Amino acid sequence: MTRQQIIENIRKKQSFLCVGLDTDIKKIPSHLLQCDDPVFEFNKAIIDATAEYCIAYKPNIAFYESNGICGWQALEKTIKYIQQNYPDQLIIADAKRGDIGNTSAMYARTFFEHLNVDAVTVAPYMGEDSVSPFLGYAGKWVILLALTSNKGSKDFQLITNAEGTPLYKTVICKSSEWANDDELMYVVGATQGELFKEIRSEAPNHFLLVPGVGAQGGSLEEVCKYGMTEDCGLIVNSSRGIIYASQDTDFARVAAHKAQELQQQMAKLLPAGLKK
Amino acid sequence: MTRQQIIENIRKKQSFLCVGLDTDIKKIPSHLLQCDDPVFEFNKAIIDATAEYCIAYKPNIAFYESNGICGWQALEKTIKYIQQNYPDQLIIADAKRGDIGNTSAMYARTFFEHLNVDAVTVAPYMGEDSVSPFLGYAGKWVILLALTSNKGSKDFQLITNAEGTPLYKTVICKSSEWANDDELMYVVGATQGELFKEIRSEAPNHFLLVPGVGAQGGSLEEVCKYGMTEDCGLIVNSSRGIIYASQDTDFARVAAHKAQELQQQMAKLLPAGLKK
Repeated sequence: MTRQQIIENIRKKQSFLCVGLDTDIKKIPSHLLQCDDPVFEFNKAIIDATAEYCIAYKPNIAFYESNGICGWQALEKTIKYIQQNYPDQLIIADAKRGDIGNTSAMYARTFFEHLNVDAVTVAPYMGEDSVSPFLGYAGKWVILLALTSNKGSKDFQLITNAEGTPLYKTVICKSSEWANDDELMYVVGATQGELFKEIRSEAPNHFLLVPGVGAQGGSLEEVCKYGMTEDCGLIVNSSRGIIYASQDTDFARVAAHKAQELQQQMAKLLPAGLKK
Repeated sequence: MTRQQIIENIRKKQSFLCVGLDTDIKKIPSHLLQCDDPVFEFNKAIIDATAEYCIAYKPNIAFYESNGICGWQALEKTIKYIQQNYPDQLIIADAKRGDIGNTSAMYARTFFEHLNVDAVTVAPYMGEDSVSPFLGYAGKWVILLALTSNKGSKDFQLITNAEGTPLYKTVICKSSEWANDDELMYVVGATQGELFKEIRSEAPNHFLLVPGVGAQGGSLEEVCKYGMTEDCGLIVNSSRGIIYASQDTDFARVAAHKAQELQQQMAKLLPAGLKK
């Protein structure tokens, strides 16, 4: 999916919401456990209920991998279901992979060829040759970890070098030499508040994938205040706050309501050029 | 597997070799492609041929994931085969995972419960709460990326802070507050030569998993000169140099020969207290 298509979807939906499919078989409503593939049935219901309010889905690979082969089956079915029924949705594999070149090339093959998703999250620690094998796939995106939403983001990402530049800024600065903003995005946690200003000083035009609104406590208004560009430039994810809003038989209806609430807030926060 | 068991296996086998199972269906001998599960058949033959010369196997998860469900089946069968036939082998899932706490907990479930391997490689970029969910499993190991073998290791791992400390040393220093050397190892690339001295100044007793001998050009003698402790403290991996030494019908015999060559070099390099 091209940058222009993403922006057009944001305008059309009046939303920059990504729904995170962190589907844990231990947390889904018990009536679904009778199905052949409870995780897929849950995802299908969530997707059908929320698709009109969001522009992206983000399956979190850990939650599927933990069920081994059954988990991979549910993941593959979920991705195909979105591709066949909602082809304008951006599909992000939240995988945080990254390894030496020949191994990253295998991960790229997994996500961009075998699963054929639109984007994959990648960890930067191993440097350029661990990231570059994911680049150069037409219409595919690398979403590189920059400044994450969790407490541990302070441990290494904020360490400053002799010139006072924190690691997350160096990651953005160096990696923006490896690819343009038409195939590279960054992960920046919603919990980082004013630091979005710093991010925008290094990456004025890149799209940012922003987790951490909802269960993790980030503020949508603050993210938009400091992070929004004239192309929107934000894809804000909510996982637990939507998919587990109810754990009863009404889970899909409640998820739709939560997604709609966020979409309505987002519509008001869009830049003038994208408002309907 | 406990630290003491690893050391005892090193003494028994006179080896600190790990065989990397980076099994690419495009590189295995063509006669195996007629089997139901060529990747598993290849691994089985490699394992049977090399087990007497090594103390660990390291399946590289990327190579299995890239084949989707079939790949996961081959991975699970390979791990079970080692556990049932060679229970004294340390099994390392080379996965380089790491995410926010609830997601890392799912990855830990994948590797330590579902697959039940002994160790998993973890990326440090997201800090303590991304690593700690992997800790506290009895007899299981976290192998944290410190200073990797690839060219890109220079991009971020060598960045120095205001006090002149490079990032990889900060990673070792901070993470050694999270766990002891009985459940935490570090990845240090064989290509890093004299920097092993720096590593040993921060981590005098930790075991190091050392990739990069062979195809990547690292020197076994140099690694031992600067990195070996009185408990050995090294697990040196070779993947391509062993498993693809021949791509013909004699691949297992040639792999055994390559593993034995390394084992014989290792026997001479062991510390006095572990030599037979």
